[in-house]
Amino acid sequence: MLELKVPHGDDLAALAGAAPVFLSYVLSFVYVAIYWNNHHHFFHLVRRVDGSMLWANLHLLFWLSLIPFATAWMGENRFAPVPTAAYGIALVMPALAWQVLQFAIIRTHGRDSALAQALGRDLKGKLSPLLYLTGALLAFVDAWAAGTVYVVVALMWLVPDRRIERMVGRA
Amino acid sequence: MLELKVPHGDDLAALAGAAPVFLSYVLSFVYVAIYWNNHHHFFHLVRRVDGSMLWANLHLLFWLSLIPFATAWMGENRFAPVPTAAYGIALVMPALAWQVLQFAIIRTHGRDSALAQALGRDLKGKLSPLLYLTGALLAFVDAWAAGTVYVVVALMWLVPDRRIERMVGRA
Amino acid sequence: MLELKVPHGDDLAALAGAAPVFLSYVLSFVYVAIYWNNHHHFFHLVRRVDGSMLWANLHLLFWLSLIPFATAWMGENRFAPVPTAAYGIALVMPALAWQVLQFAIIRTHGRDSALAQALGRDLKGKLSPLLYLTGALLAFVDAWAAGTVYVVVALMWLVPDRRIERMVGRA
Amino acid sequence: MLELKVPHGDDLAALAGAAPVFLSYVLSFVYVAIYWNNHHHFFHLVRRVDGSMLWANLHLLFWLSLIPFATAWMGENRFAPVPTAAYGIALVMPALAWQVLQFAIIRTHGRDSALAQALGRDLKGKLSPLLYLTGALLAFVDAWAAGTVYVVVALMWLVPDRRIERMVGRA
Repeated sequence: MLELKVPHGDDLAALAGAAPVFLSYVLSFVYVAIYWNNHHHFFHLVRRVDGSMLWANLHLLFWLSLIPFATAWMGENRFAPVPTAAYGIALVMPALAWQVLQFAIIRTHGRDSALAQALGRDLKGKLSPLLYLTGALLAFVDAWAAGTVYVVVALMWLVPDRRIERMVGRA
Repeated sequence: MLELKVPHGDDLAALAGAAPVFLSYVLSFVYVAIYWNNHHHFFHLVRRVDGSMLWANLHLLFWLSLIPFATAWMGENRFAPVPTAAYGIALVMPALAWQVLQFAIIRTHGRDSALAQALGRDLKGKLSPLLYLTGALLAFVDAWAAGTVYVVVALMWLVPDRRIERMVGRA
Repeated sequence: MLELKVPHGDDLAALAGAAPVFLSYVLSFVYVAIYWNNHHHFFHLVRRVDGSMLWANLHLLFWLSLIPFATAWMGENRFAPVPTAAYGIALVMPALAWQVLQFAIIRTHGRDSALAQALGRDLKGKLSPLLYLTGALLAFVDAWAAGTVYVVVALMWLVPDRRIERMVGRA
Repeated sequence: MLELKVPHGDDLAALAGAAPVFLSYVLSFVYVAIYWNNHHHFFHLVRRVDGSMLWANLHLLFWLSLIPFATAWMGENRFAPVPTAAYGIALVMPALAWQVLQFAIIRTHGRDSALAQALGRDLKGKLSPLLYLTGALLAFVDAWAAGTVYVVVALMWLVPDRRIERMVGRA
């Protein structure tokens, strides 16, 4: 899915020049892995599959399929403002699609299902699109600020769930 | 399967220039998703798999495998007449291959099978290749007319089945 | 797996120029489909999987993975002698790897197994590498002669099995 | 996953020019096949899957996903020192990630599990990262020396397990 271009030249400078592309690749790999992991855990609790869930799933897949494109555009342009903002938008869309998918699944399974219970208030899920949007806006001010926001959201999902959930719940 | 080229340049103009490629991508993603979804539903009812079904399936896969090619050609040439017509033909072929696959499956399962019943008269399936062909011919008159036909067929399949079926049945 | 390059230009001449690439694509798609189909049928009868079978399978996969490369080289060079001969060699290798895989499977299952019986004398399997080699040699004389041999072997596998087997058996 | 570029030109010289790219491709195909094979065997004995195992698995997948990149860089630069050393590092990382995955799995299953027994002291697994690192350092002295080390490690894994294990055990 994600692609990594081979640098021109055969020395360390060529490798160093590929650093922005590589950083973008790492970040997107982590995001896709988080979706893959959450998808795996979430669908483990799904009992019934209907048409709206299949379409919500394909809708999510559509936005995820744009991430490699946004990743390459940001990396190849060394975190220039517009591509870095576009990357943030490319993260907002699957985050919203994930919310739509959750809604479709919970509607079918009921608010009292094990699935709805496991999800709880889902603060991280609701906070993430807002943070991505903040990152996208910050891209026009400072590329590093935008990048930091993107990395922080990734870390927020990487750190074991319950502890962070409680922390965010308190904050 | 579908590919999206990274635009040259790092500003909004570069992104806007990628609009035709992006529109083609969205349209083809929807078509492939519809096939994937229908395939999933249809094969759910399949009880026996024989050689002719396997070959009819690979025949369908062959024509589907050409869609990314036709998509890129149309998008990169900004809906020029010949590529836009070729895209229509690239949609006619899997639509016909789908009819062949249906025929192979129903022959094995019998006209009275749950599968044949679920399919009904399949007006949408029989209408689609004719509409794609109309779109392909319109491409030589006006790109937007052709595009509108392609979008209408996609919407015809996206809207929940029974209602549209009844509407088309009445018309 | 197989790739089809988007032609430069937006007219019928551009499409016609892509004909050799397209023909190569069709031929290779058919070959890969035949392998996929036979693999599916054959492994349906496999009862035990051991290490040698896994490696023989990966060995087959290696040679199959080179077919897209040989296909593109032949198509992009419009059936020039060396690429057309290389394509023949690229077909010889998986055909031999298939024989090795069959041998590994039959050794484990025994000469009297349903699998060994289903295979019979396997005249087509033994004839194919020789025919591909003939095609590769003919490529230096005439591209069409080589192409004809490649198409004939594909047809030999596409036509329902038993009849052809009997025909070849008689000849 | 791995990609093989089509050579420019249609003669034997063009094919010969692609030799370094092809050699890199073969080597990496073998490495990926070994990982795939070991992964298959190892997970066959896994009884419980938990979060840390899923993440350790994705971590391994990340480093494996860089191998095509390192392979192409080394091949296209005809085994120049820096790309050849980078290739060695690209092999060190998944080898370490494999150790982390093993550790995560054994921690869950216990030191007395069939899985831990099957693994034994795992001399090959512990030796491999050291050998890859040696190869990476040798790349700055002589490309062939580095290549030889990479090939030897591949062979060490290809040869049936127990015999080599005993040999290395004695040495």
